[in-house]
Amino acid sequence: MKYGVIGTGAIGGYYGAKLAKAGCDVHFLLHKDYEYVVKHGLRVDSVDGSFLLDNVNAYRSTVDMPQCDCVLVCLKSVNNHLLTTLLPPLLKNDTLVVLIQNGIGVEDDVQELFPNVSLAAGLAFICSAKTEPGVVNHQCYGYINIGNFSCQNQSMIDDVVNDFRIAGIDANEVEYQEARWKKAVWNMPFNGMTVALNTQTDTLLRYPSTLRLIKEQMMEVVNAAKACGVKNIDESFADKMIDNTINMTPYSPSMKLDYEFGRPMEIRYLYQRPIEMARKMGFRMPKLEMLMDELLFIQDSM
Amino acid sequence: MKYGVIGTGAIGGYYGAKLAKAGCDVHFLLHKDYEYVVKHGLRVDSVDGSFLLDNVNAYRSTVDMPQCDCVLVCLKSVNNHLLTTLLPPLLKNDTLVVLIQNGIGVEDDVQELFPNVSLAAGLAFICSAKTEPGVVNHQCYGYINIGNFSCQNQSMIDDVVNDFRIAGIDANEVEYQEARWKKAVWNMPFNGMTVALNTQTDTLLRYPSTLRLIKEQMMEVVNAAKACGVKNIDESFADKMIDNTINMTPYSPSMKLDYEFGRPMEIRYLYQRPIEMARKMGFRMPKLEMLMDELLFIQDSM
Repeated sequence: MKYGVIGTGAIGGYYGAKLAKAGCDVHFLLHKDYEYVVKHGLRVDSVDGSFLLDNVNAYRSTVDMPQCDCVLVCLKSVNNHLLTTLLPPLLKNDTLVVLIQNGIGVEDDVQELFPNVSLAAGLAFICSAKTEPGVVNHQCYGYINIGNFSCQNQSMIDDVVNDFRIAGIDANEVEYQEARWKKAVWNMPFNGMTVALNTQTDTLLRYPSTLRLIKEQMMEVVNAAKACGVKNIDESFADKMIDNTINMTPYSPSMKLDYEFGRPMEIRYLYQRPIEMARKMGFRMPKLEMLMDELLFIQDSM
Repeated sequence: MKYGVIGTGAIGGYYGAKLAKAGCDVHFLLHKDYEYVVKHGLRVDSVDGSFLLDNVNAYRSTVDMPQCDCVLVCLKSVNNHLLTTLLPPLLKNDTLVVLIQNGIGVEDDVQELFPNVSLAAGLAFICSAKTEPGVVNHQCYGYINIGNFSCQNQSMIDDVVNDFRIAGIDANEVEYQEARWKKAVWNMPFNGMTVALNTQTDTLLRYPSTLRLIKEQMMEVVNAAKACGVKNIDESFADKMIDNTINMTPYSPSMKLDYEFGRPMEIRYLYQRPIEMARKMGFRMPKLEMLMDELLFIQDSM
């Protein structure tokens, strides 16, 4: 299996390097870090054991990359318009493209751009960050769930899951819709609320007003998922997410980091698209709609 | 008519001084400014003509004040628990107490404390501020609407309205419920949103996301009013409020000023009580509920 990684950052750098270290043929698209990585390799500082990957197959442009069996798209979803030029050089007839991205609706939108490409969702549960050029810092977790969106060839999904496992990553296939909506139960309240109130997860859960609000926003996601046909997420799942988060160390979700560093926030796929989808099914998410509008204001006025 | 003013600030100082200047017998409760006002009088710097009121009937405690025909309560509503001790010395059998305060539910709560007292709402439309000790700065507007809450003696209401008019203040009697809810259509969105997004009215209306959100919050108030029996406020009223505000100079509502100066915010009467009342009638205001929860968080964590 030949792998391509588009977006060699905290996520793509980690998973790509793990696969390459395990012997997979991995090709990395790099941008600012290209020179550094060619010279010094790609380093992963990890709680599970650090390592340096030298002789990295590094590229400045996908035009120079080989066609791949599997492409891991690890861009921030705000850059997905770039895929129309980035992706085609890597595609064969049966290439599987795995979108390791946040939110809901990314697969639908990419499928519209590439109607014949096989797509899957990659749901990464990982705390990692690119701390300096060519260095990924991996603090905790690391498992990935793969949800099949439009791949007719099941053995491709199996092969990718298997390669991840060989690379020492806990990978599992999951039901696509359920997985995306389950992740949204946590993502939609916490990403936006930490920005809107300029705080962290633990502080939000320490006050009765925001604890109540987070729970209500989670229930909006649970019920939106139901309206969209995902039946087996219920209130107990929301309660479990809250309990888990209370037991986590204080955490700034990715949108909070984007906000702090003045980067564009993933409002479209974390809010606009799921809100739109639920609304099409006749279900409104008023508190998350309001959060979306606050985030749009913050983004546009910052 | 003998008048008492509890809370000689931007509102009580202005209306009390105007009444006294017109010849009414007005008695002022003062706190920090007592010494200054006894020595130098109470000054009103006003767009409608500035004046100095000397020989002010000033008191440090209501125990020393005479019983009054009409008491103007101009405290911030966060201090209404003080009324149990402040008010009794001023009360005769037929005293009319006018609550010139923000929000919904103040009369209900004060009535519970004083079941036999005649109450009215005073809805002040005024831009004024106490800029230094003994000085009220009056920038614009100034009219007041009086809504009868529990006064059996209509001539008392008429007399008060008449005294305000003689003092050069545009005063009118209005229907109590309708007046309180109409003011809430503007108050509930703008007071909280300028705090939650740390901005001003004009900026909120300049972005499509917050313009939409403000309109939706206004419609929550319009429909809550309907649920509470106030039928003649409709969408066109909300639209008019938005148009008026677009044409206003950039404005920080009172809650924004409270927030900026680190003072407690009037969350109870601007949000909690109206939300409670509507909910009792089976109507939810989800976006204003969320705003309330955000404000409680901001208040508790500041």
